Amino acid sequence: MTIPSVKGTAASPTPLTRSGLQPGLWSTRVVFRHGQCDPAGIVYTPKFFDVFNQTVEKWFCERLGVDYYEVLGPRRIGLGYAAASATFFIPCMMGDEIEVFVDVDRVGTKSYTLVLHAFKGDGEALRGQFVTVTTSLATHQSIPIPEDIRKALVVYSETARR
Amino acid sequence: MTIPSVKGTAASPTPLTRSGLQPGLWSTRVVFRHGQCDPAGIVYTPKFFDVFNQTVEKWFCERLGVDYYEVLGPRRIGLGYAAASATFFIPCMMGDEIEVFVDVDRVGTKSYTLVLHAFKGDGEALRGQFVTVTTSLATHQSIPIPEDIRKALVVYSETARR
Amino acid sequence: MTIPSVKGTAASPTPLTRSGLQPGLWSTRVVFRHGQCDPAGIVYTPKFFDVFNQTVEKWFCERLGVDYYEVLGPRRIGLGYAAASATFFIPCMMGDEIEVFVDVDRVGTKSYTLVLHAFKGDGEALRGQFVTVTTSLATHQSIPIPEDIRKALVVYSETARR
Amino acid sequence: MTIPSVKGTAASPTPLTRSGLQPGLWSTRVVFRHGQCDPAGIVYTPKFFDVFNQTVEKWFCERLGVDYYEVLGPRRIGLGYAAASATFFIPCMMGDEIEVFVDVDRVGTKSYTLVLHAFKGDGEALRGQFVTVTTSLATHQSIPIPEDIRKALVVYSETARR
Repeated sequence: MTIPSVKGTAASPTPLTRSGLQPGLWSTRVVFRHGQCDPAGIVYTPKFFDVFNQTVEKWFCERLGVDYYEVLGPRRIGLGYAAASATFFIPCMMGDEIEVFVDVDRVGTKSYTLVLHAFKGDGEALRGQFVTVTTSLATHQSIPIPEDIRKALVVYSETARR
Repeated sequence: MTIPSVKGTAASPTPLTRSGLQPGLWSTRVVFRHGQCDPAGIVYTPKFFDVFNQTVEKWFCERLGVDYYEVLGPRRIGLGYAAASATFFIPCMMGDEIEVFVDVDRVGTKSYTLVLHAFKGDGEALRGQFVTVTTSLATHQSIPIPEDIRKALVVYSETARR
Repeated sequence: MTIPSVKGTAASPTPLTRSGLQPGLWSTRVVFRHGQCDPAGIVYTPKFFDVFNQTVEKWFCERLGVDYYEVLGPRRIGLGYAAASATFFIPCMMGDEIEVFVDVDRVGTKSYTLVLHAFKGDGEALRGQFVTVTTSLATHQSIPIPEDIRKALVVYSETARR
Repeated sequence: MTIPSVKGTAASPTPLTRSGLQPGLWSTRVVFRHGQCDPAGIVYTPKFFDVFNQTVEKWFCERLGVDYYEVLGPRRIGLGYAAASATFFIPCMMGDEIEVFVDVDRVGTKSYTLVLHAFKGDGEALRGQFVTVTTSLATHQSIPIPEDIRKALVVYSETARR
């Protein structure tokens, strides 16, 4: 199912090939299991967001060197979303393996934006975008991005872009 | 946690109040159960997309009069997404009840766009947007929206806007 | 798919008909949505446990009059499982509606056992059993069942059996 | 939270240590992500069944050499459960890593039973049991275990026990 470009939607991003990817981006591989797929045999949309979330957590722990569970737990810092979106280019079926690359699109004062490129073979199957806001889990107000997280995001971003 | 507006993101929609909603929109109520929430007590993002999907299915069956399961099953028509997104205004916690309103934003030839407004009390807690493409599950190519679905979408849309 | 009785398993419970059910049991109805089903069109096993959990939460709030979310939240009492099991009699497909009845099998000092009968039409489609242990979420040790919960379980149990 | 043994339940299995495990069992590692945990910070019960299912699929593909997705897809053979159960010994929290070992408990004519031991460190955190029935997805009747699957199960079982 090649999903055709849809007229009338503001932003219709074009899928990348692997050579179009920023070099140096961290990635992880995921195989879609049968329980993540619907009766059409296609991955159920919310499961893509689940995979993207799990990817970001793994990236924090394995690449950024920031313990995601200490952030949410003892440090009581929320990493919730102001916006989450995905654009779908190629459908994913049960048994398919994707490779998800994490890119940092923007680091602001109290929020940052991640873009996740999920490749199936050489083609970008889908792309996610997550506008993340750092909050205090005690007051539920937004707070400046903690310094260790901000630094890790900036260093990763610069390394990938070098 | 009132998530502050985030500078630097193109589209920052403003949350509606109930009086700002199109009158006549169908809605359904959902209580967030503890298994849909994360260790911060806040609904896990992919679960919102799950709730939106379940809402659309219920709306098809109960309001549009189109059997969603016959569409996906015997009729072998896919109702997948070219794009799915959500903007979050007010966080939802375990035990919270939301009311989700379905609006038809656009009916094209081979795709249509739904907007879902989820209210917690009088405030819009989050908003989803789903660009849906009708496909053949046999060939996985996009097809014109089947006539009964197109008509149901248009009639609903006109009724709600009257 | 009538799943045949399996020789060699110790306990092979026999499915009930509605007339075989304890009268007076509280129940709730659930429609299986397409995202809860797998590529065979059959409900994905973990989703049954999800539905059972959501049913128990609703039963606490609507029938027992105990706020499940206050228990887990401010009261910091855990209602985790020592054991969870399900036996499957009739498969459930996308679009199927089941009615789930909650029965209290046993009320001990620090644990209680719930049995959930899920009917599809007049036949029991599956049955769940949950051995629930009350714990302190501060110390993670088991504690006596709080008095309001114990009383609600006993009253419900006696009412259903009368 | 060491869940105490519960009197009044028929079968209270005793948790194993690693040295008590059958040698030669295939295993895989899983980290529990925050979206798999509930507001108590503990893994949500249905997610354990999800992890067990994904483990079995991976074991089929990587160890048994049987393509699980070809079985469910083109071969139209169902691998559904007559019974699924889990016993919990040690709670699992967000960020915890478990190692899941797959054991074949029984190979019958039309069904087989798998036991999954999930270790957290040196202790068995939980154990799952799945009575699996092979069915035709066309007729939804049980069928003899296909020869390649039966043979793979027996060979694995004998190798592990040697």
